[in-house]
Amino acid sequence: MSAVPSIETVRELAAKFCNWGRWGPDDELGTLNHLIPEHRVAAAALVRTGDVLSLAIPLGDDGPQHAGSGRFNPIHLMRYTGRDFTAPGSAERDPRRGYLQNADDVLILPLQAATQWDGLAHVFFDQQMYNGYSAADVSSSGARRNAVTAGGDRMVGRGVLLDLPAALGVPYLEAGRPVGADDLEAARVHHGVEVGPGDFVLVRTGHMARARERGEWGDYAGGPAPGLGLESVPWIAERCIAGLATDTWSVEAIPAQTPDVTCPVHILLIVMLGLWVGEIFDLEALAARCAADGRHEFLFLAPPLPVTGGIGSPINPQAVL
Amino acid sequence: MSAVPSIETVRELAAKFCNWGRWGPDDELGTLNHLIPEHRVAAAALVRTGDVLSLAIPLGDDGPQHAGSGRFNPIHLMRYTGRDFTAPGSAERDPRRGYLQNADDVLILPLQAATQWDGLAHVFFDQQMYNGYSAADVSSSGARRNAVTAGGDRMVGRGVLLDLPAALGVPYLEAGRPVGADDLEAARVHHGVEVGPGDFVLVRTGHMARARERGEWGDYAGGPAPGLGLESVPWIAERCIAGLATDTWSVEAIPAQTPDVTCPVHILLIVMLGLWVGEIFDLEALAARCAADGRHEFLFLAPPLPVTGGIGSPINPQAVL
Amino acid sequence: MSAVPSIETVRELAAKFCNWGRWGPDDELGTLNHLIPEHRVAAAALVRTGDVLSLAIPLGDDGPQHAGSGRFNPIHLMRYTGRDFTAPGSAERDPRRGYLQNADDVLILPLQAATQWDGLAHVFFDQQMYNGYSAADVSSSGARRNAVTAGGDRMVGRGVLLDLPAALGVPYLEAGRPVGADDLEAARVHHGVEVGPGDFVLVRTGHMARARERGEWGDYAGGPAPGLGLESVPWIAERCIAGLATDTWSVEAIPAQTPDVTCPVHILLIVMLGLWVGEIFDLEALAARCAADGRHEFLFLAPPLPVTGGIGSPINPQAVL
Amino acid sequence: MSAVPSIETVRELAAKFCNWGRWGPDDELGTLNHLIPEHRVAAAALVRTGDVLSLAIPLGDDGPQHAGSGRFNPIHLMRYTGRDFTAPGSAERDPRRGYLQNADDVLILPLQAATQWDGLAHVFFDQQMYNGYSAADVSSSGARRNAVTAGGDRMVGRGVLLDLPAALGVPYLEAGRPVGADDLEAARVHHGVEVGPGDFVLVRTGHMARARERGEWGDYAGGPAPGLGLESVPWIAERCIAGLATDTWSVEAIPAQTPDVTCPVHILLIVMLGLWVGEIFDLEALAARCAADGRHEFLFLAPPLPVTGGIGSPINPQAVL
Repeated sequence: MSAVPSIETVRELAAKFCNWGRWGPDDELGTLNHLIPEHRVAAAALVRTGDVLSLAIPLGDDGPQHAGSGRFNPIHLMRYTGRDFTAPGSAERDPRRGYLQNADDVLILPLQAATQWDGLAHVFFDQQMYNGYSAADVSSSGARRNAVTAGGDRMVGRGVLLDLPAALGVPYLEAGRPVGADDLEAARVHHGVEVGPGDFVLVRTGHMARARERGEWGDYAGGPAPGLGLESVPWIAERCIAGLATDTWSVEAIPAQTPDVTCPVHILLIVMLGLWVGEIFDLEALAARCAADGRHEFLFLAPPLPVTGGIGSPINPQAVL
Repeated sequence: MSAVPSIETVRELAAKFCNWGRWGPDDELGTLNHLIPEHRVAAAALVRTGDVLSLAIPLGDDGPQHAGSGRFNPIHLMRYTGRDFTAPGSAERDPRRGYLQNADDVLILPLQAATQWDGLAHVFFDQQMYNGYSAADVSSSGARRNAVTAGGDRMVGRGVLLDLPAALGVPYLEAGRPVGADDLEAARVHHGVEVGPGDFVLVRTGHMARARERGEWGDYAGGPAPGLGLESVPWIAERCIAGLATDTWSVEAIPAQTPDVTCPVHILLIVMLGLWVGEIFDLEALAARCAADGRHEFLFLAPPLPVTGGIGSPINPQAVL
Repeated sequence: MSAVPSIETVRELAAKFCNWGRWGPDDELGTLNHLIPEHRVAAAALVRTGDVLSLAIPLGDDGPQHAGSGRFNPIHLMRYTGRDFTAPGSAERDPRRGYLQNADDVLILPLQAATQWDGLAHVFFDQQMYNGYSAADVSSSGARRNAVTAGGDRMVGRGVLLDLPAALGVPYLEAGRPVGADDLEAARVHHGVEVGPGDFVLVRTGHMARARERGEWGDYAGGPAPGLGLESVPWIAERCIAGLATDTWSVEAIPAQTPDVTCPVHILLIVMLGLWVGEIFDLEALAARCAADGRHEFLFLAPPLPVTGGIGSPINPQAVL
Repeated sequence: MSAVPSIETVRELAAKFCNWGRWGPDDELGTLNHLIPEHRVAAAALVRTGDVLSLAIPLGDDGPQHAGSGRFNPIHLMRYTGRDFTAPGSAERDPRRGYLQNADDVLILPLQAATQWDGLAHVFFDQQMYNGYSAADVSSSGARRNAVTAGGDRMVGRGVLLDLPAALGVPYLEAGRPVGADDLEAARVHHGVEVGPGDFVLVRTGHMARARERGEWGDYAGGPAPGLGLESVPWIAERCIAGLATDTWSVEAIPAQTPDVTCPVHILLIVMLGLWVGEIFDLEALAARCAADGRHEFLFLAPPLPVTGGIGSPINPQAVL
């Protein structure tokens, strides 16, 4: 890799690890092709206690988005409330309703506002997306290619947690710190866990814990963050994993190592590899539990909502231990 | 049960099967209490092939809601599209963006517009909800009690499919047909499957298949439908199941058996039992597969989105076989 | 005009009446340039009784949009209600709130769902919009050119009602009936009113009254309708009016006179002339009043909401008599 | 008035100036009853140059709302863009569309997010709103009484600008500064203008200009602000004006003069008087023009959108000079 990474570095890595065409000209699954049913049988066998941990943050107006982050927090509005029926003299208590009293609600949300999958139509490079489809296939009507629905019946498999601060002996990774193959490998060895084809790899940087300690999200969304660096790409590509998620808003180190390219790792992982990327995962409870158990593998599941033409999806990922 | 069911019938069944206080005065889990970690270990052991089936319908503007159904179909809007970057002379291709080209989207949806969990704050009876909480605990700010978030780390367990048309030898149940304990038991025996504590029971009526055959949703949402009748309540209560879902818009038979009570089974199951109810599940592929395999049990998972104060949640339920 | 109108007819009329460049290369006002302040002084002088008539239909879920119309009716949701404060034992009655009890609400609406202005960025022809700007100037970030905000401080002037059914002696114009210059002129003469530079011309076809008589909107939005035909374009262009509105969902006759062009009059009026077009105006009360008064001119006002980058705007147009 | 204002002061003023029942038990117009058609004839006669000034701020994501203000800025989303049609190889350029290329958009907004009318259902006191209607008349279905639609055909009349900083010789009023009857009267005398029945009084404090000078909204919405104090209430009530608006987010001084009552002036003006209150008006250009002309009266118009059951309405108010 050149001393000062640039668009040329990105193009070199792209040429080397590009998965376009690997699974045929019509593929929209990307790295989910690495995950075969047998992997799930093995993953199910990892369940020992039956405990479930949710890896999602709450979907509400106290989320990480802010005016400068380019997205907004979910807006939850009620269509009917219990108080519609408890108000004295309420007309809704009309006997003609046949005792029916119910609440109902509506949600308005950017699909990537909180814990989420980035779909393969989320990022373009030179006006193309994963598998060489044109960026023009994503119009105002949504994604005609690479919609998030492709992963709708695939997101169950083996999960592996790589807890970087634990492995590196630091409380958290500093904002901007690029994570390399050596870091990932160090964590893997530290935990004594294998990473292989079809796995979902969850990478903890400690960045969310830091925000929680501060007591406010601050610039968590949209601001500087630790994350994957260019050096991690070969490791990720070669292991043939199915998906990868972090406890940061952008899976990669922000700001980028490439002064001239804004999100180089997004380009490489999503556009070139076709990797399913998860963001804003809450890995705190899971990290504590894995450390206590001395075991960093589990059954992982995170089915996306089947939003027609959707780019991303809010999820409630789970580890079953 | 009296010859002509009425509000009195509902009150009798309520008195008999009410779970309020059963799990303490602060419980918000309801029947999810029946599901213990050991059940999940057993459920995971059911995975044989590793195949996954999604039980969700697409989330889009071609959904079942219509002007008369009281809800609307999900509205999917783009914040950025690929075409923003492919237009000739596009200013967004500014080199200062550092090659960044990305799509982003927003969804507006009633939380119960499509495949969904009803939360325990969805229905009230006499101004109270499950466990005796006041309906006033559901204000414009959402549910302060019984929010759908309570199920956020619980919805993984054993699933059982009861395919009523297959068991009864009919193509589908007619709209309005109430399903009784005898029907459920007939299907169970027909399939040679057990139903027990902590299970998620998926009840197929064929009503969605019928809409699909017609080629249009019509009054599928909000209209007459087959579904659970009053006679099914003791069976459900006594088996201590964790959740129950159907392929209809309202888990119960519409119109109701009680001329004076609009949704008596909602009252009994949700308010009294604290049962987690799923609706608009697509059970067609699952039914075909279970029939082919001669096996009607599987690992089931359907984590709700953790919407703060939420009444219901869109889900993408999965059967892992 | 050729016997069978076609794209060629449209191109001929476009060449003849195109206003591009007429008011400079940076103009975004279009025909609002015809309206000069002196016109408003004269319009204000038309006020005799001080009565105000609203020309808007209600903004609510009982509007004309439906699944097939391509838009949806406004969705009105409450953030806080009065019942939040009247529920017995309401926590919101906390004395710490200092007696504050308030309601608040949210609206979700397509900007052209009901009574509206089409902005000049609403329609393109051959990938260009009014004044020759590229269609690419309307991205996912909104209209960079020809946004509806351009009319934000202009929409006050003289209004003229042309009541076609009254002039033609019919209860209403049939759906599909194209309105020509002769029809408009007949109505003008029938009413004894002038039409000149800077005027807002309100054209009543009776189509909304017909829907009202039916008691349901039916296919009012998106379906066949009477409206302006190709023959009306020279009349409109030559009179130098500022804006024109109808009581139909699409200002022009639907289906179009041109088998090969879907909305030829939109192209000519909005793209070529830069005319501000209003739709779904309720002209019933105004028509009755004008007939009773024997006077078809008045002070007209319909300021659009200044939606940044907006394509259209909901309005509550008023006639002051 | 007692030395330290409190809830008792509020109740005394309420008793003295309450308009409940004044216009009958079914009234929903409040102070708009003061405005009679003759006032509009006189107001129209004020038009001399025909110039129009918009008093609205832009409706967009750069508005004053923020996470702490309790509302959010308008969210503008595109349904179709021009770029959908300019992308090379765009399927939307299908000749079967008959040359149709159009843009369309959607807005999501709190009705009081920007320049707005508060409706008479916006505030309650002791669980009642204007004219004694129960707060329970505002349910999740909207306002059954006092909806903003009541003003739908009334908001045209005489406008008067009271420029307080100009009259008091200061650049702006400090945040928290309560405006009394003496201040309003001083401005009136300074401008040499009358204020009488049916007028719309626009009160400039300079608070918006200050935010504009700062270059950011900061806590403009929701934070401390100058505004009407308790001492202004008799002056307002006795003049029988139709409406009143300010260049602040809350018409009244924030924080309030009453330590125990959060928004005492809202209670008095909206609940007791039934006054139509406007907020977040941009009065800068108008103030400059009035000063230059030496004339502080004009034709004013600000029709609310007829949102069924609406609490408030976004508006684009206009002064015609």
